[in-house]
Amino acid sequence: MKLLTFMNMTDDAPQVGILHKTKNAIIPFSILDIEYKDMLEVIGQLTHAEFERLNLAQEAPDIPTVPLSSVKLCAPISKPPQDIICLGINYREHQKEATQYEPSTYTTRKAYATYFSKRVNETTACGEIIPSYSHLVDSLDYEAELAVIIGKDAKNVSEEEAEKYIFGYTILNDISARNIQKRHTQWYFGKSFDGFTPLGPYITTADEMPFPLNASIRSYVNGELRQDSNTNLMLFTIPQIISELSQGMTLKAGTIISTGTPAGVGMGFQPPKFLQPGDEVRCEIEGIGTLINTIGN
Amino acid sequence: MKLLTFMNMTDDAPQVGILHKTKNAIIPFSILDIEYKDMLEVIGQLTHAEFERLNLAQEAPDIPTVPLSSVKLCAPISKPPQDIICLGINYREHQKEATQYEPSTYTTRKAYATYFSKRVNETTACGEIIPSYSHLVDSLDYEAELAVIIGKDAKNVSEEEAEKYIFGYTILNDISARNIQKRHTQWYFGKSFDGFTPLGPYITTADEMPFPLNASIRSYVNGELRQDSNTNLMLFTIPQIISELSQGMTLKAGTIISTGTPAGVGMGFQPPKFLQPGDEVRCEIEGIGTLINTIGN
Repeated sequence: MKLLTFMNMTDDAPQVGILHKTKNAIIPFSILDIEYKDMLEVIGQLTHAEFERLNLAQEAPDIPTVPLSSVKLCAPISKPPQDIICLGINYREHQKEATQYEPSTYTTRKAYATYFSKRVNETTACGEIIPSYSHLVDSLDYEAELAVIIGKDAKNVSEEEAEKYIFGYTILNDISARNIQKRHTQWYFGKSFDGFTPLGPYITTADEMPFPLNASIRSYVNGELRQDSNTNLMLFTIPQIISELSQGMTLKAGTIISTGTPAGVGMGFQPPKFLQPGDEVRCEIEGIGTLINTIGN
Repeated sequence: MKLLTFMNMTDDAPQVGILHKTKNAIIPFSILDIEYKDMLEVIGQLTHAEFERLNLAQEAPDIPTVPLSSVKLCAPISKPPQDIICLGINYREHQKEATQYEPSTYTTRKAYATYFSKRVNETTACGEIIPSYSHLVDSLDYEAELAVIIGKDAKNVSEEEAEKYIFGYTILNDISARNIQKRHTQWYFGKSFDGFTPLGPYITTADEMPFPLNASIRSYVNGELRQDSNTNLMLFTIPQIISELSQGMTLKAGTIISTGTPAGVGMGFQPPKFLQPGDEVRCEIEGIGTLINTIGN
């Protein structure tokens, strides 16, 4: 099932819906008398019975729908309740390109995952502009990533149990200002500028993705294929990540964990291919969708 | 004025109050008919007129008060709305001890501040236990720090204007698992375990502290003086920090920025003096108060 947040042109507030399986259209939760304020409430509170009704509705031929073309699609989660947890260097080929670009910033250690965080006041929806901060940033970069959304509070979870804590998956473009990321040593600030977190367009619920994941992940800049990999090539797997983090911190329902990017980011090319105003970045993950954004001035 | 969050033994929920200037007692906001759900609401919404009433009340001899000894003192902010922004290496002598302990984790670069973040599901109040995670952590450390609390949304703020965005100050003990911090390269995870953020006991409002700050900052373990410095020795000043961060990210009202720790942390000793179960850690900042916690098993 693909969950989404959208806004009718005539409404004041976004609402939650699912994508119809065969029509290019949305089934708002409200049509099924399922009432939640936003996606975070859905993640924390959706009942099994409601899930089943939505699951049937997505294939019902006669259910009332709203055409996708008549709404504004919002990011599935617009205001994450906490910073997004990110993995650095979680695909082998990306590790090579990153250490080649900047040995002092990246390391070749592989025994442990690299975790950092990304502050997000508000995520950027599919179709929205990514600001370029060209007065501060000379090396704006894209990173297509699979983001895992935690469905219930996770503490001391084993790798075997980790799957049960996953609500679903979406696409996150971990926009990075390489010059800021490098000069402040720790990566946090260069990843956390306002507008640096395109997210969406949908959340695919966990039941719809085979586990362990085996989904192609790609990105394109102005139509040119840049990243082309598969989520089964992660160095640290999703169960390992959830289990390890949960030994220390409670991963609350609604937590977003972005699982790292494969090779082919701008800094990986010689010379680097950083993003410029006007560029269109497209991130695709099989089974989830396509997240498209344009770089602003 | 010193703001605090407390709980009457008979109440279900914490409430907000101020410390009386001369009595060892609290004036609850409710006595002045000022109604806010919690400290985050106070920070975002307290009016100038309310501030003035509180300011007068703290010295009023006949105002009804609640003895400090009759309540449970909570952390002033128990659930920060976003991760806490931290500075690494913001006092020169601490830089020396840190690079000596672990050259691969710390750097001697000084041109730019080191920012990272600390996830906090819930802060730890003065008097509460800090968990030791002794099955995972062999090098638990303390870091007494001055934390700045942002009072209104800050974006593109100049150094000259930065002071206006400060609501107040409190003490943060940036508990760190050095082995975890080191092995994951980026510092985030080793700083973000549940219970690793003692905060409080009070928020001293900005008007009560001279600016630029000139406050002694000390920590003690089991009564032994470990850190002894002054906030005027920060390498990057509070206006520089607020201004720089706000060029990229909007610092929302309620944001907590912890400004780094001076020399004398456990890893700075030879051999290191890490925290053990039963140890009492006391952090003091002049003009704010004393934050005391004990290490659990």
